[in-house]
Amino acid sequence: MYSEKILQVLTQFKQNKITTEEALEALRKLPYEDLGFAKIDYHREIRKGFPEVIFCGGKTPQQVKEIAFNMYKNGSDVLGTRASHEHFEAVRELLEKAVYYETARIISIRNTPPRKTKGIIGVVAAGTSDLAVAEEAAVTAELMGNTVKRFYDVGVAGLHRLLDKIEEIRECRVIIAIAGMEGALPTVLGGLVGSPIIAVPTSVGYGANFHGLSALLAMLNSCASGVSVVNIDNGFGAAYSASLINKIGEEGK
Amino acid sequence: MYSEKILQVLTQFKQNKITTEEALEALRKLPYEDLGFAKIDYHREIRKGFPEVIFCGGKTPQQVKEIAFNMYKNGSDVLGTRASHEHFEAVRELLEKAVYYETARIISIRNTPPRKTKGIIGVVAAGTSDLAVAEEAAVTAELMGNTVKRFYDVGVAGLHRLLDKIEEIRECRVIIAIAGMEGALPTVLGGLVGSPIIAVPTSVGYGANFHGLSALLAMLNSCASGVSVVNIDNGFGAAYSASLINKIGEEGK
Amino acid sequence: MYSEKILQVLTQFKQNKITTEEALEALRKLPYEDLGFAKIDYHREIRKGFPEVIFCGGKTPQQVKEIAFNMYKNGSDVLGTRASHEHFEAVRELLEKAVYYETARIISIRNTPPRKTKGIIGVVAAGTSDLAVAEEAAVTAELMGNTVKRFYDVGVAGLHRLLDKIEEIRECRVIIAIAGMEGALPTVLGGLVGSPIIAVPTSVGYGANFHGLSALLAMLNSCASGVSVVNIDNGFGAAYSASLINKIGEEGK
Amino acid sequence: MYSEKILQVLTQFKQNKITTEEALEALRKLPYEDLGFAKIDYHREIRKGFPEVIFCGGKTPQQVKEIAFNMYKNGSDVLGTRASHEHFEAVRELLEKAVYYETARIISIRNTPPRKTKGIIGVVAAGTSDLAVAEEAAVTAELMGNTVKRFYDVGVAGLHRLLDKIEEIRECRVIIAIAGMEGALPTVLGGLVGSPIIAVPTSVGYGANFHGLSALLAMLNSCASGVSVVNIDNGFGAAYSASLINKIGEEGK
Amino acid sequence: MYSEKILQVLTQFKQNKITTEEALEALRKLPYEDLGFAKIDYHREIRKGFPEVIFCGGKTPQQVKEIAFNMYKNGSDVLGTRASHEHFEAVRELLEKAVYYETARIISIRNTPPRKTKGIIGVVAAGTSDLAVAEEAAVTAELMGNTVKRFYDVGVAGLHRLLDKIEEIRECRVIIAIAGMEGALPTVLGGLVGSPIIAVPTSVGYGANFHGLSALLAMLNSCASGVSVVNIDNGFGAAYSASLINKIGEEGK
Amino acid sequence: MYSEKILQVLTQFKQNKITTEEALEALRKLPYEDLGFAKIDYHREIRKGFPEVIFCGGKTPQQVKEIAFNMYKNGSDVLGTRASHEHFEAVRELLEKAVYYETARIISIRNTPPRKTKGIIGVVAAGTSDLAVAEEAAVTAELMGNTVKRFYDVGVAGLHRLLDKIEEIRECRVIIAIAGMEGALPTVLGGLVGSPIIAVPTSVGYGANFHGLSALLAMLNSCASGVSVVNIDNGFGAAYSASLINKIGEEGK
Amino acid sequence: MYSEKILQVLTQFKQNKITTEEALEALRKLPYEDLGFAKIDYHREIRKGFPEVIFCGGKTPQQVKEIAFNMYKNGSDVLGTRASHEHFEAVRELLEKAVYYETARIISIRNTPPRKTKGIIGVVAAGTSDLAVAEEAAVTAELMGNTVKRFYDVGVAGLHRLLDKIEEIRECRVIIAIAGMEGALPTVLGGLVGSPIIAVPTSVGYGANFHGLSALLAMLNSCASGVSVVNIDNGFGAAYSASLINKIGEEGK
Amino acid sequence: MYSEKILQVLTQFKQNKITTEEALEALRKLPYEDLGFAKIDYHREIRKGFPEVIFCGGKTPQQVKEIAFNMYKNGSDVLGTRASHEHFEAVRELLEKAVYYETARIISIRNTPPRKTKGIIGVVAAGTSDLAVAEEAAVTAELMGNTVKRFYDVGVAGLHRLLDKIEEIRECRVIIAIAGMEGALPTVLGGLVGSPIIAVPTSVGYGANFHGLSALLAMLNSCASGVSVVNIDNGFGAAYSASLINKIGEEGK
Repeated sequence: MYSEKILQVLTQFKQNKITTEEALEALRKLPYEDLGFAKIDYHREIRKGFPEVIFCGGKTPQQVKEIAFNMYKNGSDVLGTRASHEHFEAVRELLEKAVYYETARIISIRNTPPRKTKGIIGVVAAGTSDLAVAEEAAVTAELMGNTVKRFYDVGVAGLHRLLDKIEEIRECRVIIAIAGMEGALPTVLGGLVGSPIIAVPTSVGYGANFHGLSALLAMLNSCASGVSVVNIDNGFGAAYSASLINKIGEEGK
Repeated sequence: MYSEKILQVLTQFKQNKITTEEALEALRKLPYEDLGFAKIDYHREIRKGFPEVIFCGGKTPQQVKEIAFNMYKNGSDVLGTRASHEHFEAVRELLEKAVYYETARIISIRNTPPRKTKGIIGVVAAGTSDLAVAEEAAVTAELMGNTVKRFYDVGVAGLHRLLDKIEEIRECRVIIAIAGMEGALPTVLGGLVGSPIIAVPTSVGYGANFHGLSALLAMLNSCASGVSVVNIDNGFGAAYSASLINKIGEEGK
Repeated sequence: MYSEKILQVLTQFKQNKITTEEALEALRKLPYEDLGFAKIDYHREIRKGFPEVIFCGGKTPQQVKEIAFNMYKNGSDVLGTRASHEHFEAVRELLEKAVYYETARIISIRNTPPRKTKGIIGVVAAGTSDLAVAEEAAVTAELMGNTVKRFYDVGVAGLHRLLDKIEEIRECRVIIAIAGMEGALPTVLGGLVGSPIIAVPTSVGYGANFHGLSALLAMLNSCASGVSVVNIDNGFGAAYSASLINKIGEEGK
Repeated sequence: MYSEKILQVLTQFKQNKITTEEALEALRKLPYEDLGFAKIDYHREIRKGFPEVIFCGGKTPQQVKEIAFNMYKNGSDVLGTRASHEHFEAVRELLEKAVYYETARIISIRNTPPRKTKGIIGVVAAGTSDLAVAEEAAVTAELMGNTVKRFYDVGVAGLHRLLDKIEEIRECRVIIAIAGMEGALPTVLGGLVGSPIIAVPTSVGYGANFHGLSALLAMLNSCASGVSVVNIDNGFGAAYSASLINKIGEEGK
Repeated sequence: MYSEKILQVLTQFKQNKITTEEALEALRKLPYEDLGFAKIDYHREIRKGFPEVIFCGGKTPQQVKEIAFNMYKNGSDVLGTRASHEHFEAVRELLEKAVYYETARIISIRNTPPRKTKGIIGVVAAGTSDLAVAEEAAVTAELMGNTVKRFYDVGVAGLHRLLDKIEEIRECRVIIAIAGMEGALPTVLGGLVGSPIIAVPTSVGYGANFHGLSALLAMLNSCASGVSVVNIDNGFGAAYSASLINKIGEEGK
Repeated sequence: MYSEKILQVLTQFKQNKITTEEALEALRKLPYEDLGFAKIDYHREIRKGFPEVIFCGGKTPQQVKEIAFNMYKNGSDVLGTRASHEHFEAVRELLEKAVYYETARIISIRNTPPRKTKGIIGVVAAGTSDLAVAEEAAVTAELMGNTVKRFYDVGVAGLHRLLDKIEEIRECRVIIAIAGMEGALPTVLGGLVGSPIIAVPTSVGYGANFHGLSALLAMLNSCASGVSVVNIDNGFGAAYSASLINKIGEEGK
Repeated sequence: MYSEKILQVLTQFKQNKITTEEALEALRKLPYEDLGFAKIDYHREIRKGFPEVIFCGGKTPQQVKEIAFNMYKNGSDVLGTRASHEHFEAVRELLEKAVYYETARIISIRNTPPRKTKGIIGVVAAGTSDLAVAEEAAVTAELMGNTVKRFYDVGVAGLHRLLDKIEEIRECRVIIAIAGMEGALPTVLGGLVGSPIIAVPTSVGYGANFHGLSALLAMLNSCASGVSVVNIDNGFGAAYSASLINKIGEEGK
Repeated sequence: MYSEKILQVLTQFKQNKITTEEALEALRKLPYEDLGFAKIDYHREIRKGFPEVIFCGGKTPQQVKEIAFNMYKNGSDVLGTRASHEHFEAVRELLEKAVYYETARIISIRNTPPRKTKGIIGVVAAGTSDLAVAEEAAVTAELMGNTVKRFYDVGVAGLHRLLDKIEEIRECRVIIAIAGMEGALPTVLGGLVGSPIIAVPTSVGYGANFHGLSALLAMLNSCASGVSVVNIDNGFGAAYSASLINKIGEEGK
C-alpha cells in the first residue's frame, strides 16, 4: 500500500501532473506518512470501536474540556479516565451528551453507535474495595465495544463464592483479575480456567502492603500459567490489553 | 458436560448397572472430579497441542528423568524448562528421542505430531544478551504448536533496525517483547503495532539494574497501551500467555 | 516458689545454719537465680518434650559435635537444624544413635522416649520445591513430641488437590502453611479452615520473587484472618510456634 | 456427613420421591454446598462467639450503616474496625445499642450475650503511642469472647517496668506483643515466657522507620522462638489469631 | 594569579607599605581567599551569564524576598526555583521588575542584559504532564544565557512525532531529555543523535512508578551511550549541567 | 550498694526490727528494686543536668500539658521535643515559665539552674534547610547542660566556608554533623578533625532522596573513621549521645 | 541532505537513467535509509575517532573473537569492555596487534592512528579500590581520542590530597568523578570547579552500601550543581558522555 | 601554630635568609601544608596510640605486604583489617613479628610498646555468630591502646545472661553493642546503662534479614537514647569511634 503510494506519486510526476516541488514534498513526507500511516491505521482501529483516551489525572478541568471538545468535533469517541466530578462538569458545559461513570471515574462521549462483541471479557474482583479499579476496567472495556461480565467480591478467602461462579467465568474469552492485599485471585483463577488472564494489583491494604507492592509481586510470581500483569490500579490498561485480545477472537484475525 | 456425567451415573444406577456403593463413590468424587475434570479439560487442551511442563530448575537429573519418563509413557508430550545438560543426559538415557534446545535450556519429547497455527507469535528481543530468555519463549511457543517468528537484536538504541522489521512484526497476532536494562522495547512497540504485547523484563545489565528491577518497573509503567508483563526472565510464562491468546484467533473461540 | 526460696534462706539464716556471708551470697544471686529460674523453667519445659536446638548454619562440624555431645551428656535431647552431611558425620563419630533427616537438614539425638500429642499439626506445602522447608517444620514438630500430618504439593494453582484434602486438614489443631512464589496458600486455607495458621514464605522462585519477599508480603497482607507469619524459609520457627499452640490443647493449659 | 447427604439424595431418587431433574439439581449443587457447608461451619463458629467483621477503612458511613444493619437483623454480632466517628454516627442512627470504642476505632453491636474465656490473652504494648493498635487488638479479642489483660507502656528501654509485670504476663495463654520503632519487645518477651506470641509491628516512629518496616523486619528476624508476626498496625489480625489459639485451650479441642 | 597575590603582599610588606600584622592577616586569609577566589571565579562566571540560584522550596516568602533583594542590590541576576505565587508576590513588593514563570515555577530578576548562545540546548519532553519539569529546565537554561528549543509531547509511544522532529533535535549541541513512567525517551534519543544527553526522570505516573523510581532506573540503565542522569524532577540541575556543556562550545574553551 | 541494702534488710530482720513478712517483701522487691535502682541512678543522672524528655510528636496538647505539669511538680526539668505551638500554649496555661524554642520545636521548663560544660559540642549543619534539625540538636544539648557552638551553612559544596571554620570546629570535644541530600558533610569533617562525630541525616531534598535515605546510606558508608549515625532527622538523639560523650571529658569519668 | 537524495532519485528517474522499479526501490528504502543514514552518520562519527564497542560481559571468548575480527576487517577500531584474560587470548589468536589493558579490562585493536584532543578529560577517583572503574573510564576516553589526566586516591576523607590537585583538575574541560561508599567526591568537586562533572558511583564498600546504592543516591542528590550521574561501575558510559562533551570544545561545534 | 609558621617565613624573608622564590614557595604550599598539617596532627595522634589501618578487603597479599612493610619501616604501628590467612602469610615473609588474630581477621605489627587506658571499652555481643565482628571491634580497640572487656553471648532472648553481667557493663566508659537478626541488644542496653553506646548491626541471619538490614533499621530506630550506629558488620568503625570517645575521658581533653 505504501509502495502503491510512491508509485502513484512517481507516475503523477512523470506525467507532469505534479511539479518537482510537489513530488518532492509528497515524497519527503512519505516516511513520516508511513509512520503516520500507522497512526491512520491506529485511527481506523479506533473508529472500529476503540475510543481515544484522555488521562485526566494531572490535567485541569479546562484542559480536559478543550481536548474532549476537539476530539468530539473530529468525530472521535471520547474516553476520559481518572476523571473527577470537576472534570465532568467542565466537559458537560460544552458537550451535553457526556456521561460520567462515577465509580469508574470515567467520562464518555460517543460519536459512534455502541457495539458489543460476541466474546466476553470477565472482570473478576476480589473485594468490594477493589471496586473503583474493577469498574475502570469494566467500563473501559464496554466503551471499547466489548461485552463485559462482572464477577465482584469473589476473593479467595471465601473460596465457595468464587467456585459458585467458576463455570460462568470459564466461558469468558479473556479475564481481568483484580485484587489487592495478598493478590492471590489471579493464581487461583489461573489454575481453574483456560483463558488468558490480565492481573491488576490494587493499592488496597495497609502496612506491609506498601501501596500495592505486595499484590504486584504476588501476581508477577504466580505459580499458575497464563497470567500477565499490568501496573498497580491500572484498570484501564488491563481493559485495553483484554480488548486487543478479545478482538482477535471476534475478527478471526 | 458436568451435568451429563451426573445424569449418566444416575441412569446407570437406576438401571442397576452400578451398585449403590459404586454410584456413591462415583458421585462422591464428582465434585473433585469436577475440579479434576477441569484438570482433564486441561489435559485435553494439552493433548490439543500444549505440552506438559517440568520446571527443572530445583530438581535433580534423576527426578527430571522419572517425571519425564512417566509423562511420556502416559502419551503426553514432555516439555522441560530451565534444563541443564545434566538434566538432558539423564532424560536421554531412557528416552532417545528427547531433543535439547541448548540456548533455550529446554528438553522436549513428543508423542504427538507437531502442528502449526496460522496466526504468528512474534518474539522480539532487544539485545543479543537477551537470547536465552527469547529462545525459552520462542521454543516454548513452538512446542505448544504455534508458528513463531523471531526478531532479535532490534533494541531501541538502534531504532532503524526495529523500524526495518516493523511491518513484519505488525503481522503477528501476538507479540512477546523481551528487553533488559532500561526495558524500553515494549513501549516503543506498543506505539507502533496493534497486537497485544506480552513484555518480559530480563535480568541483563549491572549496577542499578538490580537484577531486572529496572526493566520490570519500566515495562509496568509503559506509556503505551496494550502491554502486560510477566516475571523477570520468565520466557516460558510469556509464551504460555501468548499461546492462549493465539489459540483464540485460531479457534475463533 | 521464688518467695519460698527467699523464706528458706531467711529461715536458715535465722537458725544460724548459714553465715551472714552465705545468706548474702544466696540472696544476692536470687534475682538472677529468679531469672535463671526462668531458664530452669524453660529447661523443664524442654524436658517435657522440647528438644534443645542448635542452629548449625554458621558453625563448623567440630563446634556442632562438641555442643551436641555436651547436651547429650547432660541428658538433653539434641536437635540440630540447617545441618549438613559434614555436621552429621562429625556428630556421629561420638554419638552413634544420632539420626539425620536429610531433606529436613536436621540432626536428632534422643535421651528421652518419643511422645505424640493427640492434637495434630498439619504441615501443608504448596509445591515440591518447598519440601526442604516443609520437612524442617514437620521433623522439628515431631521431635518436639507432636503428631504431624503432611499435605504436600497442594498448591492453589491446582485447587482440586487442595480441596481433596481439605477435610483432613480441617481436623488439624494447628496448621503450618508453606509456599513460595505468590504465597497464596495460607490465604486460601484461611478461608477454608478454622484453626490458627502459621505461614512460612519460602525463597522458592526467581526474578521479582526477590528471595522470598513476594511470598512474605503476600502472607503478611493475607485477606484471610487467623494467619500469622514467620521469617522466610523458617520452618523451624513455624514448628516451634505451632508446638506451643498444640501444647495448649494438649494440656488444657 | 457429605456422603450421607449424597446417599439421601440417591435414596430419595430411587424411591421416586424426587424427579431426575431434582436429583440432578441437588447433586449438581453439592460440591458447592459442600463448600457452602464450610461456610455454614464457619458461621457456626461465628455464632459460637466470633463476631462478623467489617473493615470500615475504605467504606462510606452509608455503606457501613447498611452492612451493619443487615448483619444485625440476621442475628449476627457486628464488629467494625478502623471506624471513624462518622461511621459510628451513621450506624447509631439505625442501631441505638451500637457502642464505639474510640481509641480502638471499633464499632460493636451485640445480639448475643458477652462471654469470657478462662484463658487469658495478654496484650503487651511497648509505648503509649502504640495505644491505638493495642486497643484494636484488646477490644477485638474481648468482643470475640476472650478474657484480656492489658500491659501497656512496658517497652524494653525501661526493662524494670516489663520485668515487674513478667509473672502476670507468664500466666497468659497467648500473648499479643505490640511495638513500633526497633520492635524489640516480642524478642525480649520470647526469652522470658513460654506462651505463643503474636507480634504486631506498628508504624510508630519516623525517619528510617519507613512506616513500620523497621519493627516488621525486627520481629520477623527475632532471635527468640515462639514468635509469629502479622501485618503492620494489624491489631485486629493479631486478636483474631490469638482468639483461635485461646479457644483451643478453652475447648480442649 | 594566586602566586601573584602572594608576591604582591610580600612586596608591599618588604616596602613597609603594610605592617607585619597586616601581612600576616593577608597571608593567613590567603588559603581561604584562594578558595574564596574560587568563589570569586564562580561569581565571575555568574556575571558572565549564570544567575545566582535560590531554591525557594523550603523557604518562607519573607526569606526569599530578603535574599533576592540583597542579591539584586549587589548587581547579581536573581534566579529562584520551585517558587510559589506567594514567593513571587513577596519578591515583587520590593522588586517590581521581577518576572514569574508560572509553569516553570521560577522567579527571575535581571541586572544584566540577556544574552543568547549560538549553540542550542534542546529540551525534549515525553508527555504534557512532564511540562513543569521541562519548563524549569528550559527557563533556567534561557536565564543562564542559552538559546533553547523546546520539543514537547514527543514521547516514544507515538514514535512518528519524535521522528518528525529528529533532525531539528540533532542540531542541538546538548539535549535535555525529560520523561516519567517508563523513561524510555533518552534511550531512543541516544540511538538517534550524537549530542550529549542529560536525562531527567519525572515523578509522573502512578502505582509501580514509585514516585519516579521507574524512570530513574530506566535512564541509569539506558542501553544507549552518551546519556547521564540527574535527580528525579530536577529540571534545574539538568539545565545547569547542559549550560556548562553548551558554554564549552561557545567559548571554544 | 545493692549488697549493702540486702545486708541492711538481713540485719533488721535478725534484730527483729522487721517481721518475716516485711523482710520477705523487701527482699522480693529487691531484684526489681535493683533494676528500679538503675532507674533511680538514671534519675540521679538526670538531676545532675539531664532533663526528662517528652516526645510530643503523637501526643495531644492536653496529654503533653499533664505530663509536663507532673514532671515539673516533682522537681524535674522538663524537655519536650517535636512540640507544636499548640503544645506550648497548653503547657504555658499551667506553667508560665515554660520557654518555646520555635525553630527547634522544643519546650523547656527548668527547675534547676542552668549549667555549662567546659567541653564544647559543635553543631555543624550543611544547609539552611537543615536548621530545624540542627536547632533540635543544639537546644537539646544546651538544655542538658552542654556548651554548644553552632556552625551553620557550611555545606561541602562551598568548601571554603567549612575550611574557614575548621580550626574552631577542631576545638570541639564532640561534633554533631547534620546534612541532607548527599550527606557528605560528616565524611569531609571526619577527614579533618580528631573528635568523635555523631552524624544526623535529614530528610531535606526531593526525588531520589527518598525522605533521607540518600543521606542516611552515605553517612553509614562514610569512608572517614570516627563517624557514627543516628536516625533521619533525629537531632535530639544526636544531642543525647553527644552529651553522654561530653560528660566523659567533663567528669574525667 | 535527505531532500537532495530524493531530488537526485527523481532526476535520474525522469532522465530514464533508472527504471521505475529502481526508483521505487530507492525511494521505498529511503525512510529506512534515512534512519540508516543516521547509522552511517554514526559510523562516520566513529571513524572520526570513536571506536566501536563490544560489551564482552556475557559473551564467550569465541563470540568476542568473531565480532572483533569482523570489525577489524571492516577497517573499524575495536574496543572491548569488561574483557577477561580469556577474551583477550581468544582475540589475540587472530589479531596479533590486540592490546589488553588489564586493570581497565579493555581490549583495543586500532586500524586508525591514535589522536589526542587539546581539551583534557580529568578522571578523578576517590580510592584505590575504585581503580578498575577509573581505568575503564580513562582507557575508554583515551581510545576515543581524548587527552586524559588521572587524579587517583584523592578521596574527600583526606581533603588535602584533593586540594593539592585542585588547580590541575580545574584545567580539565570535563571531569569524571568516581567514588564508592558515601560517594561524596563529585559534590566536593562540584563546589570547587566550573567544568561539567560526570559522576560514577562504584559498588565498592560493604554492609549498607547495597552494591553501590549508597554512592548512587548520594550522587543523584548532590547539593552541588553541574553534576550528572551514570550507572553504578559504568566507567565506559561516563567516558562516552565525557568524550561527546569534550568533542564540543574541540570542534567548536 | 599556623600563624607562627607564616610569621617565621616572613621573618626569614625580611632578614634575607630566604629568597623571594623560597618565600613564595613556602607560602604557596602553606594552605596545603596547613591541611597537610592536619595530616601530621593526625599522624601525631596515631603515634599517640592509634595504629594506621589497612583495609585488606579488596587488596592482593602482595599489595598488603608492601603497604605494611613501608608503614613499619617508617616507625608506624600496622593494623590490617579483613585480612585473610593469605594476607598474613605474605606479610610474615618480610615482618616476622606480625601477629594474626584469626577470628578478628586482623594483622598487627607493633613498633611502639602497647598501652592501656584506664577507661574500659565494653564489647557486648548478642550471639556466638556475631563473634567475628565482635573480635574485629575488640582487637581493633585493644591495638589502639584501649582496655577492653568482652561480654559475649548475652543476647536479649536469654535476658538473665545479660542481667548477670549488667553491673560490669555499667562500669565501662563506652559500650560497643553488636547484634544481628532483630538487633534488639543496643536498645535493651540503652535502657540499663548510662554510657554512650555504639551499635553494630551484623549480617547474621537469613530470609527477611536482608543481609543485616533488619538489625540496622532496628538500631537506627532504637527507642532508647544514647545509641548511635555504624555500618553493617563494621566492627572496626565502632572501635575507632569508641576509642576516640574513650580517649576523651583519658586525657580529660
